[in-house]
Amino acid sequence: MPTEPTLALARFVAYTKPHELPERVRREAKRAMLNWLGCAIGASRQDTVERAIAALAPFAGPPQATILGRRERFDIGHAALLNGMTSHTFDFDDTHLKTIIHPTGPVASALLALAEHMPVTGEEFIHAFVLGTEVECRIGSAVYPSHYDIGWHITGTAGVFGAAAAAGRLLGLSEQQLVWALGIAATQACGLREMFGSMCKPLHVGLAARNGLQAALLAQQDFTSATQPIEGRRGFANVLATERDLSRISDRLGGTWELEANSYKPFACGVVVHPVIDGCLQLRAEHDLSADSIAAIELKVHPLVLELTGKKAPRTGLEGKFSVYHSAAVAIIDGAAGPAQYSDARVADAKVVALRDRVYATIGQALSEDAAHVSIRLADGRVLERFVAHALGSVGNPVSDRDLEAKFRGLCAPILTEDAAAAIIAACWRLDASAECGALARLTVPQLRAAEATAEGR
Amino acid sequence: MPTEPTLALARFVAYTKPHELPERVRREAKRAMLNWLGCAIGASRQDTVERAIAALAPFAGPPQATILGRRERFDIGHAALLNGMTSHTFDFDDTHLKTIIHPTGPVASALLALAEHMPVTGEEFIHAFVLGTEVECRIGSAVYPSHYDIGWHITGTAGVFGAAAAAGRLLGLSEQQLVWALGIAATQACGLREMFGSMCKPLHVGLAARNGLQAALLAQQDFTSATQPIEGRRGFANVLATERDLSRISDRLGGTWELEANSYKPFACGVVVHPVIDGCLQLRAEHDLSADSIAAIELKVHPLVLELTGKKAPRTGLEGKFSVYHSAAVAIIDGAAGPAQYSDARVADAKVVALRDRVYATIGQALSEDAAHVSIRLADGRVLERFVAHALGSVGNPVSDRDLEAKFRGLCAPILTEDAAAAIIAACWRLDASAECGALARLTVPQLRAAEATAEGR
Repeated sequence: MPTEPTLALARFVAYTKPHELPERVRREAKRAMLNWLGCAIGASRQDTVERAIAALAPFAGPPQATILGRRERFDIGHAALLNGMTSHTFDFDDTHLKTIIHPTGPVASALLALAEHMPVTGEEFIHAFVLGTEVECRIGSAVYPSHYDIGWHITGTAGVFGAAAAAGRLLGLSEQQLVWALGIAATQACGLREMFGSMCKPLHVGLAARNGLQAALLAQQDFTSATQPIEGRRGFANVLATERDLSRISDRLGGTWELEANSYKPFACGVVVHPVIDGCLQLRAEHDLSADSIAAIELKVHPLVLELTGKKAPRTGLEGKFSVYHSAAVAIIDGAAGPAQYSDARVADAKVVALRDRVYATIGQALSEDAAHVSIRLADGRVLERFVAHALGSVGNPVSDRDLEAKFRGLCAPILTEDAAAAIIAACWRLDASAECGALARLTVPQLRAAEATAEGR
Repeated sequence: MPTEPTLALARFVAYTKPHELPERVRREAKRAMLNWLGCAIGASRQDTVERAIAALAPFAGPPQATILGRRERFDIGHAALLNGMTSHTFDFDDTHLKTIIHPTGPVASALLALAEHMPVTGEEFIHAFVLGTEVECRIGSAVYPSHYDIGWHITGTAGVFGAAAAAGRLLGLSEQQLVWALGIAATQACGLREMFGSMCKPLHVGLAARNGLQAALLAQQDFTSATQPIEGRRGFANVLATERDLSRISDRLGGTWELEANSYKPFACGVVVHPVIDGCLQLRAEHDLSADSIAAIELKVHPLVLELTGKKAPRTGLEGKFSVYHSAAVAIIDGAAGPAQYSDARVADAKVVALRDRVYATIGQALSEDAAHVSIRLADGRVLERFVAHALGSVGNPVSDRDLEAKFRGLCAPILTEDAAAAIIAACWRLDASAECGALARLTVPQLRAAEATAEGR
């Protein structure tokens, strides 16, 4: 392998063979797909997607690809954009903890749309998916943390490379075309952390998917870009980061797999809050806690928790996802931290607000990102403590396949029948044997109920 | 006016009235439109656009808007993208010299596509166009030069704001919606200088147009973004620049007009080379020079000339635009520096290469960007010298309306009949009186010749 990052990645994507993937990486790909599909289906009726569809539908192309969980079909670019967006709308998607990239959204959204437009076997799909996530996580690793610290939403900026690489693989691009695709992706890398808490945050994931897909389509027609878009003097790594380690892109490329460091959130909010929620849920279950019995909740957390989720008085469900205070309160009151706990109504609920105002968080400098210390002072003077070393869902404490299935069914419940959800779960676990995996997308389309079918004249 | 940049711009775009524009600014808008249309029509058959259309057409939406100079029609997003791209393909479009932004491409490409989709009068169009260029140039001024020095292609990164503001105005967005539109634009700001010399450079302009247009369409549906996307801690100005002066955004907003500092290139290459070409053409005309008679051409130039156009041995027409050596050689040999002088063939021509190798350039620290010193040493020992204080086309030496018309006709000659070109020129000069200015785009569509009409069965 060459050490020039762009060339190394282009060759890796062009020449790696499906049989070179370890079985455990293949399995992780299927877990990632199931988790991603659930997030996208579950959020498919949120305002974010309704407004985006209202804005963009009049300009969309032929009905080539499915909007997951919905009946509309759009061109593959718009499908990639909308599915990428919905899959991140609940902040419930997967996380590559080394970089805080949510790796599946950009890559899978581009790939599944493409797989509805051209014949793609499950084996090809999983292979392209793994290559795409490898590319985005390695590029992200090379610029993390300075890139993120400056203010870039790394899932958007690194994700566009992953989408381009994965789509480029399915399109059979040459080594040169893959260099161009990575370049066309590099020059569209975007997404500012200033947008966190607004609808633009999930939009970034959709943009990465659409822009990466279009980068591959352009490169397929020999649309040229720079030859060193990542490492060049005015390329991605120099312009969008203050420190970088480009060796992380090419070192042991093909020998290690970033997807093995992927994690799936059990809770529907920023991953840095998960250790706190885990600790609160454990104490609640063990001591049958209620809000009334609690005088104060005192948290010791990693510095990023306050930086990213320090909102003391969130006003909307979306802002609630960025509030460690709200998250601790609903964990105690509801015994859960799913999408229902991050609705506008739940954030405004008087009982939740009252407990939230009794949550205090301070920084524990020695804590790792997946750890937290929760101390609950009861009204009767007792103090309950719990140290969470590795939050549920972290690499050190991964969710099981059964956990993932349960999460998936929970996300689909408002949208699909139980049978439909079960069919998707089964299709995911046997995805590598699929002869034509675009069909997976169509399984997510809600069937008309009898009454609706009559109303629509069928 | 508030001094918070985003809010100031949103109010400026929402509340400024057409009659508040000075007549000279309106006139400059018409000059900018004529120049832009010529550049887009002239480049409408280049590989860049052919490849982009081949890549994107299968996914495009309804035939809502014209691709300038061509018969295809696409949805307004793709039309904005393709017209923005073609208008910058020849590097022949306008330049706001204070920031090196090419202001018209992003804004006009978004606006004209939108004007084919909804009724827009010429007065509304010109007003929105002026507001859009004002927004992009002021945002660009606030971060120039550090933003550009880092490696950002400022026409892409600032242009997306201009397109969003202009489209937002036509769509009648509220103050709040305009804040969101600027935010959705900010988080898509992209385009790396590493791409210069590849097809991605003009693509940036198209992306700015499409992304800005879509930002306005999303905001129209109340798709939310940050409230301080430009000035926020992790907003555009902090993340994409190392130094910034945000007062340049709001100071005297509505009282001065950046379009008055716009300039139009007489030559089809990077604007920093223009003083050299101007000097060479003057000496050639006065002394009837030929390549054979020249021993060496010695240039003293602004530092940016070598930084941006220092390619000693360009291999393609595109690279030739970034070679002061090639530019000086063709100016002497052809007496011109139009699109024909930047073809692949012309760059590879043995006579051009031979003279190019006798061109030497050094930095003159005291020179302004629109100045150069040309010294031609003849084979017979004589030395001819010319100092160009303000290159033709610079703000200090602007091209006339007649120059612009001649440039337009030259650009259109391979694509349109003389009558068709004349009709567009006339329509531009009376654009402010147009009742429905989407018609301007359709004037650029080549009519079928009789033989073609027969072949197409008409």
